[in-house]
Amino acid sequence: MDILVETSARHMHITQADLETLFGKSAELTWKKDLSQPGQYACAERVDVVGPKGKFNMSILGPVRPVTQVEISLTDARMMGISAPVRESGDLAGSAGAKLVGPAGEVELKEGVIAAKRHIHTTPEDAAAMGVKDKEIVDVVINTMERALVFGDVVVRVHPNFRTAMHIDTDESNAAAAGGEVYASIVK
Amino acid sequence: MDILVETSARHMHITQADLETLFGKSAELTWKKDLSQPGQYACAERVDVVGPKGKFNMSILGPVRPVTQVEISLTDARMMGISAPVRESGDLAGSAGAKLVGPAGEVELKEGVIAAKRHIHTTPEDAAAMGVKDKEIVDVVINTMERALVFGDVVVRVHPNFRTAMHIDTDESNAAAAGGEVYASIVK
Repeated sequence: MDILVETSARHMHITQADLETLFGKSAELTWKKDLSQPGQYACAERVDVVGPKGKFNMSILGPVRPVTQVEISLTDARMMGISAPVRESGDLAGSAGAKLVGPAGEVELKEGVIAAKRHIHTTPEDAAAMGVKDKEIVDVVINTMERALVFGDVVVRVHPNFRTAMHIDTDESNAAAAGGEVYASIVK
Repeated sequence: MDILVETSARHMHITQADLETLFGKSAELTWKKDLSQPGQYACAERVDVVGPKGKFNMSILGPVRPVTQVEISLTDARMMGISAPVRESGDLAGSAGAKLVGPAGEVELKEGVIAAKRHIHTTPEDAAAMGVKDKEIVDVVINTMERALVFGDVVVRVHPNFRTAMHIDTDESNAAAAGGEVYASIVK
């Protein structure tokens, strides 16, 4: 089964409390563009995420979440001067910190900065068709013209509300020269 | 056979003529540190390499060469606003351009900026032991803890003066979480 490969650039998820600290009391996220996963969207609001050596201006992905989380590539981490661990979304204990700067205030994030573990979002139906289960770790081949490769350590996440797609970060996308519309498949 | 993996950060090679334009008449490269390949060394001299969207200050690797060549990651290329193709060293026809800025002058490089094709330097003896030939394209597995992967499209380069090592760029290194001392092996 062909799996659409989507490249996630650096971005963040935010709590309502942190949103109000950065953008002012009663601030709300402003929808800008739907993302491939149902209910997820890019927002108009942007935040400076600041490390000891550098900073990046990042978009927020909505809706608001119970925990603020910043997802960067390891290239980004090095340029910012922080040590972001490779983690699954939500697994933030002991991850890196950073300062968040918005137009109305700042947040000192003690932890929450990670490099996302590469993963496949899929539905129960597609998971069954591919013969994989939720949380399974799989190998995935991407046959680009110049930099074909097989990603190991890819985690499968199954949920009825997902749309089947593989998410990799910009380092991983560049390592595969996966610009444009690219498809992958699980190696069995 | 285990192959040492070395990560090449952005850098450039330079002609004597361009060196003199950037650093002044009769300028010479200043040895700073030997590299793993015999006769190659990092230099004290640094150059700003400027694209439409951004620039990086890069070290020069000596000795001087017949053609000036800039090697960057595809992440770097995007931040600079240029389209660097994935190429073998020296294969520069139609590659990207950039402006080089030194303390004594500037060079408008029409072409010469590439993302290096991942490759293995090796000796005739080691090539024979691994069962590979010069210019052969191979798959290489790297078993890191968090981001194991198999790189396809790896070119083998054989020369008596080489020391056996695999060279990947920072995107590829980060995609494999290949920090520290990491070894790879050819998949047969």
